[in-house]
Formats: sequence, C-alpha cells, structure tokens
Amino acid sequence: MSNDARRYFNLPSPFPMKRGGALHGARVAYETWGSLNEARDNAVLILTGLSPSAHVASCPEDPSPGWWEGMQGAGKAIDTDRWFVICVNSLGSDKGSTCPASIDPASGKPYRLDFPELALEDVAHAAHAVVASLGIDRLACLIGCSMGGMSALAYMLLHPGSVRAHISVDTAPQAQPFAIAIRSLQREAIRLDPQWNDGNYDIHGGMSAAGDIADQGDASQSPRYPDIGMSIARKLGVITYRSAMEWNGRFARIRLDPEQRDDDPFGLEFQVESYLEGHARRFVRTFDPNSYLYLSRASDWFDIAEYGHGSVLEGLKRIRIEQALVIGVSTDILFPLEQQEQIAEGLQAAGAAVEFVALDSPQGHDAFLVDIESYSRAIGGFLARL
Amino acid sequence: MSNDARRYFNLPSPFPMKRGGALHGARVAYETWGSLNEARDNAVLILTGLSPSAHVASCPEDPSPGWWEGMQGAGKAIDTDRWFVICVNSLGSDKGSTCPASIDPASGKPYRLDFPELALEDVAHAAHAVVASLGIDRLACLIGCSMGGMSALAYMLLHPGSVRAHISVDTAPQAQPFAIAIRSLQREAIRLDPQWNDGNYDIHGGMSAAGDIADQGDASQSPRYPDIGMSIARKLGVITYRSAMEWNGRFARIRLDPEQRDDDPFGLEFQVESYLEGHARRFVRTFDPNSYLYLSRASDWFDIAEYGHGSVLEGLKRIRIEQALVIGVSTDILFPLEQQEQIAEGLQAAGAAVEFVALDSPQGHDAFLVDIESYSRAIGGFLARL
Repeated sequence: MSNDARRYFNLPSPFPMKRGGALHGARVAYETWGSLNEARDNAVLILTGLSPSAHVASCPEDPSPGWWEGMQGAGKAIDTDRWFVICVNSLGSDKGSTCPASIDPASGKPYRLDFPELALEDVAHAAHAVVASLGIDRLACLIGCSMGGMSALAYMLLHPGSVRAHISVDTAPQAQPFAIAIRSLQREAIRLDPQWNDGNYDIHGGMSAAGDIADQGDASQSPRYPDIGMSIARKLGVITYRSAMEWNGRFARIRLDPEQRDDDPFGLEFQVESYLEGHARRFVRTFDPNSYLYLSRASDWFDIAEYGHGSVLEGLKRIRIEQALVIGVSTDILFPLEQQEQIAEGLQAAGAAVEFVALDSPQGHDAFLVDIESYSRAIGGFLARL
Repeated sequence: MSNDARRYFNLPSPFPMKRGGALHGARVAYETWGSLNEARDNAVLILTGLSPSAHVASCPEDPSPGWWEGMQGAGKAIDTDRWFVICVNSLGSDKGSTCPASIDPASGKPYRLDFPELALEDVAHAAHAVVASLGIDRLACLIGCSMGGMSALAYMLLHPGSVRAHISVDTAPQAQPFAIAIRSLQREAIRLDPQWNDGNYDIHGGMSAAGDIADQGDASQSPRYPDIGMSIARKLGVITYRSAMEWNGRFARIRLDPEQRDDDPFGLEFQVESYLEGHARRFVRTFDPNSYLYLSRASDWFDIAEYGHGSVLEGLKRIRIEQALVIGVSTDILFPLEQQEQIAEGLQAAGAAVEFVALDSPQGHDAFLVDIESYSRAIGGFLARL
C-alpha cells in the first residue's frame, strides 16, 4: 500500500478473549507520531470510537488528513513535538487489525461469525500489548473517545499502574438502555438485510488495506452485500451522533433544488435527508458489516459495574491514576452528560485529581470531532499542565 | 363487523387534495360519544396521531378499550356526560378511512402509490366535513394530539370561526429536521425492504375492518409484505416516542432470562430489546405500509409558516379562537417543548387566552398516552372551565 503509515503488532498467540475462545496469529494495526524520549515517559495512547482507523492525523508516510487532524500535530492540542502519540486500531475493527473479515488460520477462510465474541476488554488488552512492545511501562496519558473511552476504562482497570493521566471524551462507564436500543436497531437493520446472508456476504478489499482481508467480490459487480442495512444503520448513527439543535440552525426546513431530487416516490426532498444519504454512501462500503456488529455489541456489553460488584462508582474506584480530564457535551443523547459526571466522580473518589468540563457545543456526541476549538482548549490545556 | 362503533361519512366527490388531484367516492370513519345538545354547542373533536384509529374510548357498540381510554368517558377529563365527542380517523389512514390500500374506483384495484399526495390540510378538511355533516357550526373544543395537533392547526386556520377553544397536545407548528430525519429513515426502512416491492406488497384484510380494503393475502401464508421494514420503522418510532430517562429507570441493563433468548447470533439479550420487539410485532401487520408512508410524509410537509409568509408566528397569528391549552413535555425529543411554546405564543399573539403547561413526565412524546394523571389534570381542568 502506498501512503500507509500503519505498523502491525503480532499479538501473543493464542490471544485469549474475555468471553471465551482465543485468536491465533492475530495482529493489530497502529500508527505513531513524534518521538519517544529517553525516559520513555512521554507516550500518549489514543483509543478510538467504533469506526475510525488508527490514522489520527497526517504524517510524512501518509499525508491524508486523519480523523482528528485539527487536534493533533506539532503545536496542536496533542502536541507531537512533545508527545509520542500512539493510536491502535481496535481489535475487531477492519482497519488493519484482525477482525471477522480476516482469514481464520484454522479454516483458511474469513472468520465471519466464527470470530470469537469480542469485548472492549479484549480491545484494551491488545492495545496494551502494543504499548508494552514499544518498551513503554507507563503512559503519560491515555485518551479515549466515545467507544474508545470505555476501552480506556478497561485498560486502566485491567493494567494497574500503566497510566499516569487520563482524558475521557464523550463516553460512558456502561451503556444505558437508550444507547443499547439504538445500537440494537442498527444491528438489526444489517442482520435483517437478506444480503447480509447470516454474515456470508461478499467481503471486498475496498473496505480495508489490510493484506489478510479476504477479497471475494468487486463493488462494481454488485456483490452480495448488505448495502441497505448498512445504510440504515449509518443514518441512525448519524442522527444520534448529532443534535436536533444543530440541525435546526443548519438545515431548518430547507428543500433540495429540484435538479438534486430523484424521481423516486418518497425520495429525498429536504436537505437533512440528503445529508444523511451522503454520510451513508461514504460509509456503507468502507466498513465491514460483521466487524460493525461485533464492535457495536461489545459497546453494549461493556459495564464498569462488573468490576464493582454491580456498582459503577465502585468499579471506577478501582482505577488508579494521578490525574484525569473528563469532557462531555450537553447535547449528546447517546452518551449523556450525566454519564461523564459519573466517570469524573468515580475517578475522583479513587484518588485522582479530576477536571470536569461540560461543553455546550451544539453538535451532540460528534462535537469532539467538530468543535475542535472547545475540545482543543480543554485537552491542550490539560496536557500542557502535565 | 361485530363490536364496531365506527360510522362513515362520504366525502364530497370529487374531494380535491391540497397538492393536486382528487379523491372520488372517498369516505372517512368516525366514532362519537355522548349527546349533542340542542344548541349544538357542546361538540369536541379529537384529531389523532399517525397510527391510532377513531376508537378513543370504549362504548356500548365497541367495549374494547380505546387508545385514550383513561382520558375520556363519563366523569373523566373529556367528560362524555357533558361533551359530544367526535373522533375522525385521518383521511389516508387504514383504520376505516379511504387510504392507499382502498380500492381506486377508477381502476378497481387498490390505489397503492396512485393515491394522490396527502397533506394534513386534507386530513383537516375531511374532518371538518364530518363535523359540518353533523350540523355543528362551531366546535366547543378541538383537541389535537401529536400529528393530530398539526392537523388541528390546519383545521382552525382553514376554517375560521369553526372552533371556540383548542387543546394542543405534544405537537408542533412544523416539522424540525430531527423529526424529518427520523421519519425519513422510517420510510426508507420500509421502501428499501424488497418485500415492499414499490408499494405492490400483498394487502391483507387483517389490518383493517373497512369493507373496501382489498384482501389479497393471508398473513398465515407468508404473503409478500415488508415485515422487516415495518419492524425497523416501528422500533425507531418507539425509541423516539419514549425517553432515555424513563428507560434508565425501567430497563437499566437488565438481561432477559436465558429461556427468553433465541439462538440467533446477535439476538435479543437486554430487556429493552425485547420491549422494542414486542412493540414491533404488535404493529407490523396492523398498519398498512403505504398508508404509513403517506401519513409520515404529510407530517414532514406540514408547516404553519406557509400561511405566514415563511413565519411560524405569523402563520399562528391567523388562527382565531377564544381559548387554548397548550401542553408539552420536557422529555419529548420528537416534538420538543420549545415548539409547544411557539404554538402558545402564536395563539396568544392572535388574541386567544392561552394556558401553557410544560410537564416533566419521563415518558417522552408518548407521555400523553401514559401519564394520564398529569394530562387529565390539565385537560380536564381546562374543559371544566369552558
């Protein structure tokens, strides 16, 4: 692959999974920026949301913009002149890490639904193995966004002493029923698409540059692929990632121009519908549907209360770090602000010095990807004081 | 039909539609409760949400509970000892009124997508025609819930002097982009279901007792029918009709018992998923998919600002009534409270004496169907003072 900055780490084999089973010959993709200092104490690890790759920001090997381009780089909030930044693609994601679309060495065919049940604890363990392989005993800071925030909680709890400071971004200590309902419906849209075919759709290489992903189809030849289910899942995602408030100002009731409309009865008419359609089109063929299902369900399953005898607070109190910044946004309906408050309270009760930042960005859950100014101020300020 | 309290009113033929075309030989179903007094000034009309029938409450001819059973009856908030209550099934709904599943007299076959484009103004005109046919010049009160609240605004605006007092329940003066996005995605789930077949699925009689609905299939014989699309649409509806707050208390992260689960990978695991599944199963075959599409889109299209040179306030200011009660609920994400405030402000600016009630019921948009105590207090109190 040209323009690819990914490196790969081979996980210990077998790599046991939390809910049973193990992966053999598995690996995870990661990228790094900046330089590890001699004391090896300037490392920052970023754990991502459900769909992003490890490509946080551009770099010489891959100058394409990353998913947090405005946040990370020389002189930016996550300053790569000072920090050695690592981002690990989640285990189970198709952006280079072993996932349900990868070849199962036992069969020589893609895992599909034979991939073992995935938990965010597994994602955390895999990321920790990468960090250890780089000779880093203790992260200066662990940053987790959205689903990655839950993976980060697992990381800190399961690897005591491995993290000095933590930045928790728009996440939750456990999935609430509203979020479970949304994700369950997204999964259902994919699963009920006849083209999903119980996971046996045509996997195609376009969705991933990882060499071990099977390429059994060609998008131009209309392979068997759950486009409809993926499109509905993505649109539902986008609806819940943003906020009604933002859309009132952005789209109001503006109609598409007549030439932008199609002849389809009940077809696109309002700008907001076209916006969702654009998001869906960009997503549908760039994310493996089975990987999506596994990561989505892992998000539902994660529950810090499992480690606190049923109590979120007690689970959080088992995390030993020095400092934390917890950020949330009032317009987030998927990871509501009260869940960030829980995280802040729990980490504080555990002895960390905690800063809690509640933003009023109108962009909802996605604010951390859009309102770079507000998030930069909070994250950059916190990191500068470390 | 046994146990059927519906009566039918034949609309003038042709019945012109707002957006073009006309219906021939169309009718609407309605039910009544109580007695019209000699002065004919005790009539209350109820306009419904998208899916309910005209069966608001039980009566001798149909003792089955209605959709607002707790609200209406002798001695209840809508006191049938005092008021002559009429509820008209929306034109375009399959609960007895002419709808896309009805026979088109021009072809002898169901209209399907040849049904003319439906607007809530058409729903309002049809309801007004029923009221006029009963010899009622002026309603004592017009009550509109959810979509019916929008139909009620159209009714009052298009038929000046026909309403004395108005009760607006959990509704909006126009659809905002979040609501449009949700409804658009619901329609898409149905339209993209291959079994929808461009509207040419097997219509079956089970969904309606109206005699003129084609019965071309039998649910027990697996007719071609968009079950999957309807199920996803309904679940998305239920998610947005309720509230995250209610579900945190009601479902939390409670799991189903093992024997309640199925073997399906990614199948139901949490109670909230089972709750949605139950709602979907009860709905899928009881509402004609094309009727759903038409009424859903009519809800997106309605915009009181069309009557106010682009201004919601100016549109509302054209409504001439004496008194109004406007109720909304803070947990409603589909028809947010600020939209009820707009209605209250507009009607007040138009000269009505307006009471505004903002409830904190946890049940979201559906609160008017669930929190009967709070809504009874507001509605019963208002009606008692008329």
